[in-house]
Amino acid sequence: MSVTSPAGFEAAGIAAGIKRTGALDLALVVNRGPRQAGAAVFTSNRAKANPILWSQQAVEDGVVSAVVLNSGGANCFTGPEGFQVTHRTAEAAASALHVSAGDVLVCSTGLIGDQLDGEVLEEGVLSAANRLASDEAAGADAARAIMTTDSRPKTTQVVVDGWRIGGMAKGAGMLAPGLATMLVVLTTDADLPSADLDAALREATRVTFDRLDSDGCMSTNDQVTLLASGASGVTPDAATFVEALTTACRDLALQLQGDAEGASHDIAIEVRGAATEGDAVEVGRSVARNNLFKAAIFGNDPNWGRVLAAIGTTRAAFDPYLVDVTMNGVRVCHAGRPDRPRDEVDLAPRATHVRIELHAGEASATIWTNDLTHDYVHENSAYSS
Amino acid sequence: MSVTSPAGFEAAGIAAGIKRTGALDLALVVNRGPRQAGAAVFTSNRAKANPILWSQQAVEDGVVSAVVLNSGGANCFTGPEGFQVTHRTAEAAASALHVSAGDVLVCSTGLIGDQLDGEVLEEGVLSAANRLASDEAAGADAARAIMTTDSRPKTTQVVVDGWRIGGMAKGAGMLAPGLATMLVVLTTDADLPSADLDAALREATRVTFDRLDSDGCMSTNDQVTLLASGASGVTPDAATFVEALTTACRDLALQLQGDAEGASHDIAIEVRGAATEGDAVEVGRSVARNNLFKAAIFGNDPNWGRVLAAIGTTRAAFDPYLVDVTMNGVRVCHAGRPDRPRDEVDLAPRATHVRIELHAGEASATIWTNDLTHDYVHENSAYSS
Repeated sequence: MSVTSPAGFEAAGIAAGIKRTGALDLALVVNRGPRQAGAAVFTSNRAKANPILWSQQAVEDGVVSAVVLNSGGANCFTGPEGFQVTHRTAEAAASALHVSAGDVLVCSTGLIGDQLDGEVLEEGVLSAANRLASDEAAGADAARAIMTTDSRPKTTQVVVDGWRIGGMAKGAGMLAPGLATMLVVLTTDADLPSADLDAALREATRVTFDRLDSDGCMSTNDQVTLLASGASGVTPDAATFVEALTTACRDLALQLQGDAEGASHDIAIEVRGAATEGDAVEVGRSVARNNLFKAAIFGNDPNWGRVLAAIGTTRAAFDPYLVDVTMNGVRVCHAGRPDRPRDEVDLAPRATHVRIELHAGEASATIWTNDLTHDYVHENSAYSS
Repeated sequence: MSVTSPAGFEAAGIAAGIKRTGALDLALVVNRGPRQAGAAVFTSNRAKANPILWSQQAVEDGVVSAVVLNSGGANCFTGPEGFQVTHRTAEAAASALHVSAGDVLVCSTGLIGDQLDGEVLEEGVLSAANRLASDEAAGADAARAIMTTDSRPKTTQVVVDGWRIGGMAKGAGMLAPGLATMLVVLTTDADLPSADLDAALREATRVTFDRLDSDGCMSTNDQVTLLASGASGVTPDAATFVEALTTACRDLALQLQGDAEGASHDIAIEVRGAATEGDAVEVGRSVARNNLFKAAIFGNDPNWGRVLAAIGTTRAAFDPYLVDVTMNGVRVCHAGRPDRPRDEVDLAPRATHVRIELHAGEASATIWTNDLTHDYVHENSAYSS
């Protein structure tokens, strides 16, 4: 059910002592081949963490042998010392696995601005390398070791004819990816070169992680990595692979949404009838980032006026007096005017569906977000203290 | 201290029965001349309320005799019937005051999507016209009648040599103006034509109301109106007038910030060393709209990593490893790395100052915002129910 599901992969998750609590905090995922192809997409935040700066270089040649991931510290805005810690982490993994450090990606997550201890990480990597295994428990440990405020690990697998995709993800806040979101590692035993992996990964993330906007806050450390071992000996056609990869990415994205910090509603904002897909995304994202709308959903209040006010701030093509808004199946606004009574809408369930019909074209997109709750404020007012 | 402070103006604030609570809900401000010049700036939200659509037309010729303002309903997304209610309101004022309906502006505030009762408004306007007065109490009543979730009325006056500016404002949520914010009426007895008023108003609002971003949510009903009676007989030079007007606007903007829904901190985000003023505003606004930063300030947590993560999402010119962040006088981040310990920062006071030094140029700007609190979530999860 995780990164060890496809053939050719080993993983480990250990407590390296980075987290003061003694919880699992370091994961290692290794591609045993025969192929060691990799691709990754990164946060588009211009303030990038040290592991992002490292991994961007390391993935360039399309060869990735291993990924080291730590929770307990983001290693972001930690200066040249911080970059050295990332470099040292990659060197430790390379030495233990007998691969090149340039083929080891590094991901970190936790508080920004705290220095990580290079020695602790180095020892952790060696210890993890000694515990590598290809069984389900090893994949589960790895998924658990990358958790921060996550309440549960997130894993997935997609089984196709003769080959598989596995994956794990962490993330519960700062969920508004620019290109990718949070830490995600996907593995496959399909036999594909890195250029094909890269194209498939960009296509799959564009309509999954990139449509997730829990709290409008884009992380400095987001990274989605895809590794292919070729161990199945099967080379699927591009469309089939993209479809399977998209399924895995969507599954993980929805698990991230379902575990978003303090959230009490998982909201799917479906925008239809847009002039372009870009317009649909812009409209959905504007509503998803509107605190008044998000607070209203928390209060089980189908306040469609706030939806229209949010649409009005976009550059999308629309006429306010053509817009329909439907909440959980009840059309509360028709042609920019009140339609069914608000009290017909039942917002008690966690799953919430808001459909916006712009009547401006044929394009559509769905953005996934969460409500704004007391618990969100509480968790994020106390995180670093 | 309010719109009746300059010579030539009368006002009234009454309970017309729009609010079910029986509170004051209708204000009338009348310019008795000799000049009846006016200018206004409006929300840049593309979903505009009916009174905005009306007032945009009415102000075009630069002649404004009166402004009717109601709380208890925004008259937004209420269709042609809603526009007729606005028209009828202006007609009622015109008839009572013996002026043209095209010289009467209308402003509404309250819940979006609720139909206002035209008859109630018409009777209210007639009743207000009978109670017009030029004394301080009349100005105070008008300021009170436009309140919604405001906890107190907001008024200002600026006294210059021989002439004055007076003003009132309402607003406690949806505070993120595109051009103007909330309902504001400014009066002056300076003798200036409407073209000069318009230029001065745009210059003053650009650096005051437009720099206020309490919750990132742009209203559909924002309007700032400036009326000049010429009753002082004094024509100030343009620079002097702009300076006085900017003082009045800043005073009202800071009163809006100080009364923002549920806020426990008034945060001034000062961005210095930007390549352009536009960059400074973009950086300040990005930080002001970052829910994680806002929740951290609520928790008295000087989490500068969230400041840098927010800067990273902008297009402004900057190098992450040159940025300094100072919170309430303590530089917690220097050159993109940890500087003074976080616990030296005292965030207990309501007034909070965050200074961001980009080291990318000479331009600067300050954005005013608030923290994200339990009370904000509470108030906005229960507003329409």
